[in-house]
Amino acid sequence: MLKLYSFSQSSASYRVRIALALKGLEYDVLGVNLIENAHQSEEYKKLNPQGRVPYLIDGENGLAQSLAIIEYLEEKYPNPSLFPKDIFARQKSRAFAHAIAADIFPLQNLSTRRKIGEDFGQSVEDQAKWSAFWIARGFLGLERELQNNPPQTEYLFADYPTIADICLVPQWNNAVRYGVDLTQFPILASFDKKARNHIAFTTTAPETQK
Amino acid sequence: MLKLYSFSQSSASYRVRIALALKGLEYDVLGVNLIENAHQSEEYKKLNPQGRVPYLIDGENGLAQSLAIIEYLEEKYPNPSLFPKDIFARQKSRAFAHAIAADIFPLQNLSTRRKIGEDFGQSVEDQAKWSAFWIARGFLGLERELQNNPPQTEYLFADYPTIADICLVPQWNNAVRYGVDLTQFPILASFDKKARNHIAFTTTAPETQK
Repeated sequence: MLKLYSFSQSSASYRVRIALALKGLEYDVLGVNLIENAHQSEEYKKLNPQGRVPYLIDGENGLAQSLAIIEYLEEKYPNPSLFPKDIFARQKSRAFAHAIAADIFPLQNLSTRRKIGEDFGQSVEDQAKWSAFWIARGFLGLERELQNNPPQTEYLFADYPTIADICLVPQWNNAVRYGVDLTQFPILASFDKKARNHIAFTTTAPETQK
Repeated sequence: MLKLYSFSQSSASYRVRIALALKGLEYDVLGVNLIENAHQSEEYKKLNPQGRVPYLIDGENGLAQSLAIIEYLEEKYPNPSLFPKDIFARQKSRAFAHAIAADIFPLQNLSTRRKIGEDFGQSVEDQAKWSAFWIARGFLGLERELQNNPPQTEYLFADYPTIADICLVPQWNNAVRYGVDLTQFPILASFDKKARNHIAFTTTAPETQK
């Protein structure tokens, strides 16, 4: 049985929970409470030296990094696919996912917010403003791309959820939390709404996790 | 002919230049000077709404995000491969690349340093300290992973350069620039040294670009 080290509120963990649900894979969840710094404990770092979640155990192998885990799941369990079939659509889907995972998420996550609090004396409110800035900047680029080339598909770049949808919904939750004006992103909003009502997204959402 | 929008000093652009060289692909380079904010011009954003480099043009298609571009190149031109053959080694190679591309690079790049300068009044020296913190933290995790499971391969996770080496060398250059104590990372140092002397890395290095 697969084992997933995960935290309910972690966007990156949520991505992998969605992917596992879409693939119909069963797994045990082991909670790592980021608020309580469980990911920075020596015990956890012995397991995963990067000190982050998610971390997937498959037999003898420990697998880090949410998008790299999703690529692995796609190779090992290709059906149903989490990527479009066309090579250019597949690139667009990955590029969308990476724009969130690299250009938005790391700048607004817990460890970064804590660091600007500690180093620069920023209040929790100012930390939220910082987070909102990066989310809005990233979403504006993605919205404009979709405006330029509106997808004719049910989900982002395919008629089934892809790695792009898997990254969008958790990031949208953070955008809501930090008070981003989401009326600027009508196309993203429509794809977010479609995906978040899919059973693989609802059954793995933060509020369903203990 | 492929066209690459690139900036000499951009680590993410350097990744794609290495990948193109390893694949033996020819391309035209179009310079986008990040220091002069050319990536934030309306003209450039019409092309690439994310306002970042690299951006690869293949025929009618514009491709964003360095790692998504590398996955695309691997699918379209599979030989020589930039990924290990074994599924677990492939996951490790991607996870290593993502740890740099998502957990280190975005926190220390130009737009983030500028933002902490503008918002929090941090001097250029303090910005460098901020960058060094994230690089050291990320490299420590990766070094410890390699200590736990020393690769028996010439390059990271294969006997030829993979996406992991492609991410390591540009990030190592930034570590040098920001004064990170690199004696902490002997295993990373040995893999960096091996890769940076490979012809695909030397011929595309920042100092070779106009």
